[in-house]
Amino acid sequence: MEKRELLYEGKAKKVFKTDDENAYIVDYKDDATALNGLKKGTIHDKGIINNRVTNHLMKLLEKNGVPTHLIKELSDRETLVKKVTIVPLEVIVRNVAAGSLAKRLGLPEGTVLSKTVLEYCYKDDALGDPMVNEYHIMAMNFCTKEELDLIASYALKINEILTDYLKDVNISLIDFKLEFGKTADGTIVLADEISPDTCRFWDTVTHEKLDKDRFRRDMGGEEDAYKEILARLLGE
Amino acid sequence: MEKRELLYEGKAKKVFKTDDENAYIVDYKDDATALNGLKKGTIHDKGIINNRVTNHLMKLLEKNGVPTHLIKELSDRETLVKKVTIVPLEVIVRNVAAGSLAKRLGLPEGTVLSKTVLEYCYKDDALGDPMVNEYHIMAMNFCTKEELDLIASYALKINEILTDYLKDVNISLIDFKLEFGKTADGTIVLADEISPDTCRFWDTVTHEKLDKDRFRRDMGGEEDAYKEILARLLGE
Repeated sequence: MEKRELLYEGKAKKVFKTDDENAYIVDYKDDATALNGLKKGTIHDKGIINNRVTNHLMKLLEKNGVPTHLIKELSDRETLVKKVTIVPLEVIVRNVAAGSLAKRLGLPEGTVLSKTVLEYCYKDDALGDPMVNEYHIMAMNFCTKEELDLIASYALKINEILTDYLKDVNISLIDFKLEFGKTADGTIVLADEISPDTCRFWDTVTHEKLDKDRFRRDMGGEEDAYKEILARLLGE
Repeated sequence: MEKRELLYEGKAKKVFKTDDENAYIVDYKDDATALNGLKKGTIHDKGIINNRVTNHLMKLLEKNGVPTHLIKELSDRETLVKKVTIVPLEVIVRNVAAGSLAKRLGLPEGTVLSKTVLEYCYKDDALGDPMVNEYHIMAMNFCTKEELDLIASYALKINEILTDYLKDVNISLIDFKLEFGKTADGTIVLADEISPDTCRFWDTVTHEKLDKDRFRRDMGGEEDAYKEILARLLGE
């Protein structure tokens, strides 16, 4: 399958049309941005790591009954995926308070939440991806009630599957961001990526951060952290 | 019933203990604040108007099956209310986009929402009353799921009752903020106030603002607007 017209270039990925009208090619970049685009940089080989980690975890999810957009990994940085229309929501799943939730609720980072928290943000850079609730989603017609219920149930199921799986390699899944899409026949599938760009991964024992917070917060060591995730998940 | 110890002084009201351990006296002030306390001022006779308007509307709600904290109006500014423990949530009901929702979703103020929107904010001045969703509320134990479902159903019912009632006096109910409390026996009742401080009231025909936005936005004419609401609701 060959790349055709560039359809979209985002902060971390390019998406290309292909000869198959129902399939796109995603091409992962090393570019990193944070703070809604205010901070820019690159993380060496991030694109390779995120592509491989995402596909590894999406295969795990597929095997456990969660439909995803994944068709086939094509190369280190390129993956063939189903064409979807993205539901314009970032779905955030939180097990432990960190980042914006810690700030919002005045909780020390690292506070274990008594129940899993889901949050929805409206994907709109100009508005700063504002948090929205189910009523906003319905009033704005971002998706139907049935679709949102399905998305929420997938998000919670994904959290269970990933948390269990990551425990075995000493990674605590603090929180993560998901995006869902609709295929041509209306099926809701997991899209986007699952990587150190979109998840907070902490070493279970030392609580060392193994994710994009190292870049976001100018901590350094982001390249080693991404490599460590690849090593723990794929044994490489 | 006499006022005893001052229990709490808020931005717009004082609350006193009484000789009845299950009753408080609320005393409405003319003080007005906005922008989370950054802007301060007074609106002449606001306390009188808000006390009388609140009690008038709470009686209407009681008559229509919504339990409230109201016991008895004692004077122009003072009302005897049931002692409650406040659920630490501002419950916001929106029919038309205005204020923070218009900003959050990039909607022109005045856009009629296709469905009624409920929002919850965690009552915490230091955190700026952050918006929270049902998952945050459960994880933080602000109330139980059953209590939240009841609060949401009351909020929607109050919206129907007030919208219908206000239509007859040419007032459009754009949005409003409610607070609920729990009595000693665990009953959830509407508390706080329903007034031009806590509602956006627009003249149905001219869309003239008849509420605290006149103060908040330095438009002037807030005293006349509050008087106009009293006149339309109580014929005075």
